Amino acid sequence: MAEEDGYEVARRGAETMLGRDVASRGLGMELVEVAPGRAVIAMRIRDDMVNGYGLCHGGLLASVADTAFAVACNTYGEVTVAAGFDITFLESGRAGDLVHASAVERARRGRSGLYDVTVTRVEPGGGEVVLAEFRGRSRSLGKPIS
Amino acid sequence: MAEEDGYEVARRGAETMLGRDVASRGLGMELVEVAPGRAVIAMRIRDDMVNGYGLCHGGLLASVADTAFAVACNTYGEVTVAAGFDITFLESGRAGDLVHASAVERARRGRSGLYDVTVTRVEPGGGEVVLAEFRGRSRSLGKPIS
Amino acid sequence: MAEEDGYEVARRGAETMLGRDVASRGLGMELVEVAPGRAVIAMRIRDDMVNGYGLCHGGLLASVADTAFAVACNTYGEVTVAAGFDITFLESGRAGDLVHASAVERARRGRSGLYDVTVTRVEPGGGEVVLAEFRGRSRSLGKPIS
Amino acid sequence: MAEEDGYEVARRGAETMLGRDVASRGLGMELVEVAPGRAVIAMRIRDDMVNGYGLCHGGLLASVADTAFAVACNTYGEVTVAAGFDITFLESGRAGDLVHASAVERARRGRSGLYDVTVTRVEPGGGEVVLAEFRGRSRSLGKPIS
Repeated sequence: MAEEDGYEVARRGAETMLGRDVASRGLGMELVEVAPGRAVIAMRIRDDMVNGYGLCHGGLLASVADTAFAVACNTYGEVTVAAGFDITFLESGRAGDLVHASAVERARRGRSGLYDVTVTRVEPGGGEVVLAEFRGRSRSLGKPIS
Repeated sequence: MAEEDGYEVARRGAETMLGRDVASRGLGMELVEVAPGRAVIAMRIRDDMVNGYGLCHGGLLASVADTAFAVACNTYGEVTVAAGFDITFLESGRAGDLVHASAVERARRGRSGLYDVTVTRVEPGGGEVVLAEFRGRSRSLGKPIS
Repeated sequence: MAEEDGYEVARRGAETMLGRDVASRGLGMELVEVAPGRAVIAMRIRDDMVNGYGLCHGGLLASVADTAFAVACNTYGEVTVAAGFDITFLESGRAGDLVHASAVERARRGRSGLYDVTVTRVEPGGGEVVLAEFRGRSRSLGKPIS
Repeated sequence: MAEEDGYEVARRGAETMLGRDVASRGLGMELVEVAPGRAVIAMRIRDDMVNGYGLCHGGLLASVADTAFAVACNTYGEVTVAAGFDITFLESGRAGDLVHASAVERARRGRSGLYDVTVTRVEPGGGEVVLAEFRGRSRSLGKPIS
């Protein structure tokens, strides 16, 4: 019961956040799943998302990870913001690729949280290739999401 | 003379990169200045760039910093890619804000480089408020930009 | 057979590295386990390792993580060095605490690697409390460990 | 007058911290200078500080940077702790090298601070070679140093 409540709070937080998040929607991001401390976001890399080398702009790969991080750290019913993040690029994304950003909580202490997000390219056959590893640092503001 | 050449190489590298970078142009980014190891990029935060809290999406603030970083690390005539970056958010951006991302080189050793990018909001009166501090890690691929 | 070889290469690499690593030995570090891409290092926080607030110096907590990272990224028989790392402190360590630094490989691409190291305090009863999360970036030099 | 007070508060904070910091003293660190938001720490790399490749242990280079960071972020009279840091290694240190870690404040917002620390090898002739770039994230606990 308490666990179901946690999932319900997480789901509602994600819907509230993404419902208002015109940036993420404009980039075509969609919620794949959400649970307390976790979220998966999908995004298709479009022709208008590539940089000077024909590869997905690093900031946009970071954006999908940042959205998954934001959803995951807002699953407890408290307004929580990003204090910062680090990202390492491993492979390039290309136009047409479907990417998943999967956020999992590493730690929470007081109002601080640490979340790891793995960005993968989902292969047509079903496998996944890691494109980037992201680690986000969050701060709760201590007030309810409304 | 050698210095002028360096500026000319930097300017051409920036034009080549940004000319092809549909992602940065789609986000309204413009080159303000470029020199060897340095670049300033401007972006106006649009209504379609805000997140679930009405603030500029962190990934898009990171994107303008990432573009300034990419231009700065490609000013030596060699194709250079982002290996990763870290960003710390200090203030929120809002729709209508004009932001500048100013990249300066910290270090280059062999094919690795380190660049600091400060993202500021340019105030109508002329001052600047720091929104984020970004540090990018680059790797040269050792082949000429063409 | 091939897998056994990998474990043997890992064990020999760790012994070679730690055998010469007077800094890690001087800090009382000991190898707990090693496998390809993984390593666990133990260290007892001594009275001479605390800072101005009576807590384990952050640099020394980072040092035990850095040693675990160094061992883990040198398990493939190639000389590999740290390009950098990020650490987040979650709880303080105190004199007398036994800490474990457990390194696992996140990714390897070409000569670059990414390793996550969790630093825990091992409780007398057997549980573990996370003190810090560390993420290390490695570069192989492409020559054999000898 | 107010400025002198700031310098006096900084100097006293540094003396209080370093006076108790047995770890930093055990590593031979010495305060070179301190001012509000700034500090320089010197350390001579000893024979017992080298790793398995005969180079200064990365964790110990990080330790001198971490001490400079700790002193710099405690110059305002409030107990301030490290939330985390990132370090990039550019050159190796060797036994006998004199290193300086110079911390400068990048930003403070509320209880959070960001400090850049450059670790250099001081050449006998007087020049300095950058060994590492460190960026520290601090949190004030909101109580006076005593």
